[in-house]
Amino acid sequence: MNFIAAGLAIVGAAIGAGLGNGQVISKTIESMARQPEMAGQLRSTMFIGVALIEAVPILGVVIALLLVLQ
Amino acid sequence: MNFIAAGLAIVGAAIGAGLGNGQVISKTIESMARQPEMAGQLRSTMFIGVALIEAVPILGVVIALLLVLQ
Amino acid sequence: MNFIAAGLAIVGAAIGAGLGNGQVISKTIESMARQPEMAGQLRSTMFIGVALIEAVPILGVVIALLLVLQ
Amino acid sequence: MNFIAAGLAIVGAAIGAGLGNGQVISKTIESMARQPEMAGQLRSTMFIGVALIEAVPILGVVIALLLVLQ
Amino acid sequence: MNFIAAGLAIVGAAIGAGLGNGQVISKTIESMARQPEMAGQLRSTMFIGVALIEAVPILGVVIALLLVLQ
Amino acid sequence: MNFIAAGLAIVGAAIGAGLGNGQVISKTIESMARQPEMAGQLRSTMFIGVALIEAVPILGVVIALLLVLQ
Amino acid sequence: MNFIAAGLAIVGAAIGAGLGNGQVISKTIESMARQPEMAGQLRSTMFIGVALIEAVPILGVVIALLLVLQ
Amino acid sequence: MNFIAAGLAIVGAAIGAGLGNGQVISKTIESMARQPEMAGQLRSTMFIGVALIEAVPILGVVIALLLVLQ
Amino acid sequence: MNFIAAGLAIVGAAIGAGLGNGQVISKTIESMARQPEMAGQLRSTMFIGVALIEAVPILGVVIALLLVLQ
Amino acid sequence: MNFIAAGLAIVGAAIGAGLGNGQVISKTIESMARQPEMAGQLRSTMFIGVALIEAVPILGVVIALLLVLQ
Amino acid sequence: MNFIAAGLAIVGAAIGAGLGNGQVISKTIESMARQPEMAGQLRSTMFIGVALIEAVPILGVVIALLLVLQ
Amino acid sequence: MNFIAAGLAIVGAAIGAGLGNGQVISKTIESMARQPEMAGQLRSTMFIGVALIEAVPILGVVIALLLVLQ
Amino acid sequence: MNFIAAGLAIVGAAIGAGLGNGQVISKTIESMARQPEMAGQLRSTMFIGVALIEAVPILGVVIALLLVLQ
Amino acid sequence: MNFIAAGLAIVGAAIGAGLGNGQVISKTIESMARQPEMAGQLRSTMFIGVALIEAVPILGVVIALLLVLQ
Repeated sequence: MNFIAAGLAIVGAAIGAGLGNGQVISKTIESMARQPEMAGQLRSTMFIGVALIEAVPILGVVIALLLVLQ
Repeated sequence: MNFIAAGLAIVGAAIGAGLGNGQVISKTIESMARQPEMAGQLRSTMFIGVALIEAVPILGVVIALLLVLQ
Repeated sequence: MNFIAAGLAIVGAAIGAGLGNGQVISKTIESMARQPEMAGQLRSTMFIGVALIEAVPILGVVIALLLVLQ
Repeated sequence: MNFIAAGLAIVGAAIGAGLGNGQVISKTIESMARQPEMAGQLRSTMFIGVALIEAVPILGVVIALLLVLQ
Repeated sequence: MNFIAAGLAIVGAAIGAGLGNGQVISKTIESMARQPEMAGQLRSTMFIGVALIEAVPILGVVIALLLVLQ
Repeated sequence: MNFIAAGLAIVGAAIGAGLGNGQVISKTIESMARQPEMAGQLRSTMFIGVALIEAVPILGVVIALLLVLQ
Repeated sequence: MNFIAAGLAIVGAAIGAGLGNGQVISKTIESMARQPEMAGQLRSTMFIGVALIEAVPILGVVIALLLVLQ
Repeated sequence: MNFIAAGLAIVGAAIGAGLGNGQVISKTIESMARQPEMAGQLRSTMFIGVALIEAVPILGVVIALLLVLQ
Repeated sequence: MNFIAAGLAIVGAAIGAGLGNGQVISKTIESMARQPEMAGQLRSTMFIGVALIEAVPILGVVIALLLVLQ
Repeated sequence: MNFIAAGLAIVGAAIGAGLGNGQVISKTIESMARQPEMAGQLRSTMFIGVALIEAVPILGVVIALLLVLQ
Repeated sequence: MNFIAAGLAIVGAAIGAGLGNGQVISKTIESMARQPEMAGQLRSTMFIGVALIEAVPILGVVIALLLVLQ
Repeated sequence: MNFIAAGLAIVGAAIGAGLGNGQVISKTIESMARQPEMAGQLRSTMFIGVALIEAVPILGVVIALLLVLQ
Repeated sequence: MNFIAAGLAIVGAAIGAGLGNGQVISKTIESMARQPEMAGQLRSTMFIGVALIEAVPILGVVIALLLVLQ
Repeated sequence: MNFIAAGLAIVGAAIGAGLGNGQVISKTIESMARQPEMAGQLRSTMFIGVALIEAVPILGVVIALLLVLQ
């Protein structure tokens, strides 16, 4: 039963992280192409944002590992 | 049965946090590229907003940890 | 059975809070970038709105905690 | 069985309140930024609207509490 | 079994009322910002509309209460 | 089993009535703001339309009451 | 088992009638606001259309009543 | 088991007929408001179209009646 | 078991026919209002298209009748 | 069990054929209204396209008949 | 059990082929109406594309036939 | 049990291949109609893209055949 | 049980690869048609992107093969 | 039971990675076509973004391998 729980956690973590990050990074690239002089500032904001988004999915992966190796 | 509950909680937390944060951060980056002189104020508002959004998912992760380590 | 109920409650609370807050905060940031002289008033309205939105999910988290620690 | 029912009620209440309020508040903030001289009237209408929307979800939370503490 | 039915009824009532009211109130606020001289008439129409929308969900909550306290 | 049926009926009735009425009333308010001289005629058409939409959900609520009090 | 069938029938009838009528009536109101001199003809077409749409859901309600009172 | 089948058939028939007819009639009303001199021809085409769309759902209702009264 | 199959077949047939025909007929009416001199040709094409779309759902209804009267 | 399979096959065949054909035919009618001098060529392409789309659903109906009459 | 598998395969094949082909053919017809001098080249590309899209669903129908006649 | 797995694999393969290829080919045809002088280069890129997209579904069909003929 | 798992893995791999690649390749073709002088650079970026996207689905196919041939 | 979990994990990983990467890479290609002088910088940002997105799905694949080979 804990294996199914780990699979569910991976589903949520991967979809949440994939869609959230995809939205942020694609918008960053679009904005960098519009205003090249803002490129450094936008990219640093992107790194902070990606780190904030990845926080919960990484915790989910850790819980999934706890469930698998239990 | 508590493992499945932890998996469900991770699914909700990761998807909610990923989509909510992705929306906020991508809109912040788009606005920073439009008006560079507002960049500092927008980024500080973004940090407050991300912290407010992360509140419920982090609580969900804590409950998931309670369920796994029970 | 109460663990599954707690998991369900977390799913609803996290998704509802994440999407609702994400919508409000991203619209606030977009509006602040358009009219910088309204920034203070918009941000204070945002805080009230986020507090109103978080009310029901926080109650849901409390109920989930009641169910887990029962 | 009543725990599952409470979980379901929280899911509906949180999603309904989150999305409904998010829509109202984000539209209020957008309108305040367009016409700053209407800000007070719009915000008071927003409070009435949020209170009307929260009525059913709060009743749902009360029913969920009845089910949990039964 | 009646508890699950009450939970289902709350889900439908909260989502229906939340989305319907959110749509009406947000459109009212948007219209008030466009034409401030119509504000009173629009707000009174909004109250009638919200009352009409809330009729069925409130009946659903009453039925849910009947089911819970049975 | 009849309780579940009543819950299902409430779900359909509330969502159908909420979304249908929300669409009609929000469009009415938008149209009243555009052409204030048509306000009376639009509002009377809105009342007829809401009554026509509410017919089937009210019948559904009646059937749900039949099922609950059986 | 026939109670569940009645509940399903109500779900379909209410959602079909609500969304279909909501679409027709809201478009009628929008068109009346654009061309006030066509108001009578549009409203009579709306009545015919609503009657045509309501035909199948009313039959569904009749079948649901047959199932409940059987 | 045939009762559930009748319920399913009603769901499909009501949703299919409601959405299909709603689309046709709302587009007819929109077109009549744009070109009032085509109103008669458009309305007659609408009647033919609605009759063609209603054919399959009416057959589904007949089958549902066969299943209920069997 | 064949009754459930008949119900499923009706669901598919009614939704497929309703949405497909609704799309074709509503587009026909919109095009007739734009170019009244093409009305005859468009309507004859519409009849051919509706006949082609109805082919598979009518077969599905026939199969459903086979299943019910078996 | 083969009856359920036939019902599933009908669902897929009817929805696939209905939506695919509806898209093709409605676009054909829209294009014929824009460029009446291409009407013959567009209609012949439409017949080829509809025949190509109907190939797989007709095979599905044949398989459903095999399953029902087995 | 193999009958259900055949039904599932038909569902996927019909929906995949119907939507994919419908998209390609409707876009072809739209493009032929815009640039009549490219009609031959576009139609030949359409035939190649439809053949490429039909490859996997036809294989799925073959597998479904294998499952039914097994 | 392996038959159901084969059916699931066909569903995924057909839908993935159908929608992916349909998107690529329809965009190719649209682009060829806009810039006829690029037609050869676009069509050769289309062939490479379709081959890359078909890779995974064809592997899925092979696995489904392995499961059926096992 | 491992056959079902292989089928699920194929579903995810085919849909993920099909939609992701379809999006990338169709956007590449659209961009090549707009700026023919960038065609080589865009196509090489497309190859890198498709390879990066195919990485996870190919791993999924490998795991599915492991599960089938186990 | 662990095989099903591995299948679920692959579904989530492939869909999350496919959609997220597809969004980023397609936006990169679109931006490179608009501003060719930014091509190098955009492509390097794309590599960083793809690596960040792939992190969670690759962990999911590793967990799936752990579950399969256990």
